[in-house]
Amino acid sequence: MSNRLPTLAVVGATGAVGTVMLDILSTRENVWGEIRLVASPRSAGKRLTVRGEEVEVQALAPEVFDGVDVAMFDVPDEVSKEWAPIAAERGAVAVDNSGAFRMDPDVPLVVPEVNAEKVADRPRGIIANPNCTTLSMIVAIGALHRAYRATDLVVASYQAASGAGQEGIDTLRDQVAAAAADRTLGERAGDVRSAVGELGPFPAPLAMNVVPWAGSLKEDGYSSEELKVRNESRKILDHPDLKVAATCVRVPVVTTHALSVHATFDQEVDAAKARELLASAPGVVVQDDPAAGEFPTPADVVGTDPTWVGRIRRSIDDPRSLDLFLCGDNLRKGAALNTAQIAEVVAKEFTEG
Amino acid sequence: MSNRLPTLAVVGATGAVGTVMLDILSTRENVWGEIRLVASPRSAGKRLTVRGEEVEVQALAPEVFDGVDVAMFDVPDEVSKEWAPIAAERGAVAVDNSGAFRMDPDVPLVVPEVNAEKVADRPRGIIANPNCTTLSMIVAIGALHRAYRATDLVVASYQAASGAGQEGIDTLRDQVAAAAADRTLGERAGDVRSAVGELGPFPAPLAMNVVPWAGSLKEDGYSSEELKVRNESRKILDHPDLKVAATCVRVPVVTTHALSVHATFDQEVDAAKARELLASAPGVVVQDDPAAGEFPTPADVVGTDPTWVGRIRRSIDDPRSLDLFLCGDNLRKGAALNTAQIAEVVAKEFTEG
Repeated sequence: MSNRLPTLAVVGATGAVGTVMLDILSTRENVWGEIRLVASPRSAGKRLTVRGEEVEVQALAPEVFDGVDVAMFDVPDEVSKEWAPIAAERGAVAVDNSGAFRMDPDVPLVVPEVNAEKVADRPRGIIANPNCTTLSMIVAIGALHRAYRATDLVVASYQAASGAGQEGIDTLRDQVAAAAADRTLGERAGDVRSAVGELGPFPAPLAMNVVPWAGSLKEDGYSSEELKVRNESRKILDHPDLKVAATCVRVPVVTTHALSVHATFDQEVDAAKARELLASAPGVVVQDDPAAGEFPTPADVVGTDPTWVGRIRRSIDDPRSLDLFLCGDNLRKGAALNTAQIAEVVAKEFTEG
Repeated sequence: MSNRLPTLAVVGATGAVGTVMLDILSTRENVWGEIRLVASPRSAGKRLTVRGEEVEVQALAPEVFDGVDVAMFDVPDEVSKEWAPIAAERGAVAVDNSGAFRMDPDVPLVVPEVNAEKVADRPRGIIANPNCTTLSMIVAIGALHRAYRATDLVVASYQAASGAGQEGIDTLRDQVAAAAADRTLGERAGDVRSAVGELGPFPAPLAMNVVPWAGSLKEDGYSSEELKVRNESRKILDHPDLKVAATCVRVPVVTTHALSVHATFDQEVDAAKARELLASAPGVVVQDDPAAGEFPTPADVVGTDPTWVGRIRRSIDDPRSLDLFLCGDNLRKGAALNTAQIAEVVAKEFTEG
């Protein structure tokens, strides 16, 4: 391999995750030569700043991938399904953040802190980035699983509005403004619903409420988000027998997903040892001193890279179980950052090969 | 026993729960003769409306219990600890909503839909009302436990600000107003914290955030709220071997606690059967049709009496487990309503005895 810096294409550069991606590419160690920004035709011609330079956005077309070594996709599933294979055909390694390829047995699902070695095994030229909810917990769970083999995870999520994109953020902000105008709301059934206006991408009001739904309806009453947490966790941990029960709930937070996890292992666990394992794991920060008011919350975690873990307790009634509360920025580690990390692992093939 | 209507005292009539109690006493079937309203000396002389009549609030003193048959207490633990025995000594049955007596083996902990028969066994003349978080789920869990014996509960809560009293409600409203004024908040670590002002009774900002803490610090990193969910569930279900793991989290909702529960039983379960059991249980409403956007949310449940249950699923990886999402108004069933229901069971001793 040559020692040249590889060329990167960012597809979906103008979206909520794309915006965070440009920020991340501007602040991480620069491993890239040219960076091309790509979006839908209606955003073409826009000029965005990355690494301190203005770059003109190009319309998505097969030719934009010519000469590209790595193409990151943050676009809807159906766009990825069509275009990631086109990028791969033109010689780029596609790193895809949609749900289109995650469960494809010929596509690795990668979290660099957990299974970086899987990057090399990509027969379709595509590598998938996990769902944001799975990503917000799996680095920490992976670190525990290496020491104590996990058998069961029970997950309840507290998911941010930005998981539903810029429309989710805008809807929450509009609803909060409407709700703030009336200091009597929230004490009578339906008054929040009639006050907050448009529901946007959510099936119920999100301001001053929580909504036990994320994604689309799948078999047996499960939401797509709940199945992703189960299926992707099993694939990333390479543990097809892991039992996972998830209930996904949207909360009125702009960005950063939180999760309450009850994790059971095949042996007795110790809270102090778990704290040490997590504190020494890459990409994980332990914030766990409730006497001092120290535990992670989305408002303090947003904009940061690691998975934050607190409320680490051994279950009172089961010495093989830990109860944890985790927070991860769903746009950074949950999307753009992990995609960038995967792309950087691939970039090494060009510069170190 | 005579056929006269019993005399009721409401101690703590001016608080957040007391206010809801007066509303409940005004709308339920009237089983009471005189109703006395009692509060701290600084509220004495205030006139409040109950059953359409103005009643003057009396200052808490031993004499206010003379001639009282049932005395409901919604006051802080230390006030209950001192005054409930005084009321009992003067001949009243004390129904206490504080944490002071719940785990006392000589005090029954009662949820009428689950264990009404325990009301009769009250050697101290005191009956305890459970914690609001336990109450928001236990009617539904009790109904399932009668059919399928429960072995394990994993609970994650989404608790309302009013669980921290009127100060909690006021703090949340102030914080939401401050947060609504700035449409950029929630995208950078700490910006919500610096914008929302006073934290009030919460250890972190509650607006545009979730806070994994409720109550005081107990052994091994547990919060008092988490231990209450465990210990009270075991006592109410008369099931000292029930394994319970709870993580309690405050969310920016005014009133109505929600809970995600993963419940495991000693036999295989069926989601359709569970839905039927719940639908026919007193005090429970099933709202479970995600295809139609039907699931309970706090904004729709607040102000109502039942426990609402939705997202009823058999766990994919364990045929003995159900995953559920429940909502209950923490000031009504979670406090005032259950207290009123207990008091009504006692009242029958006077009118039907």
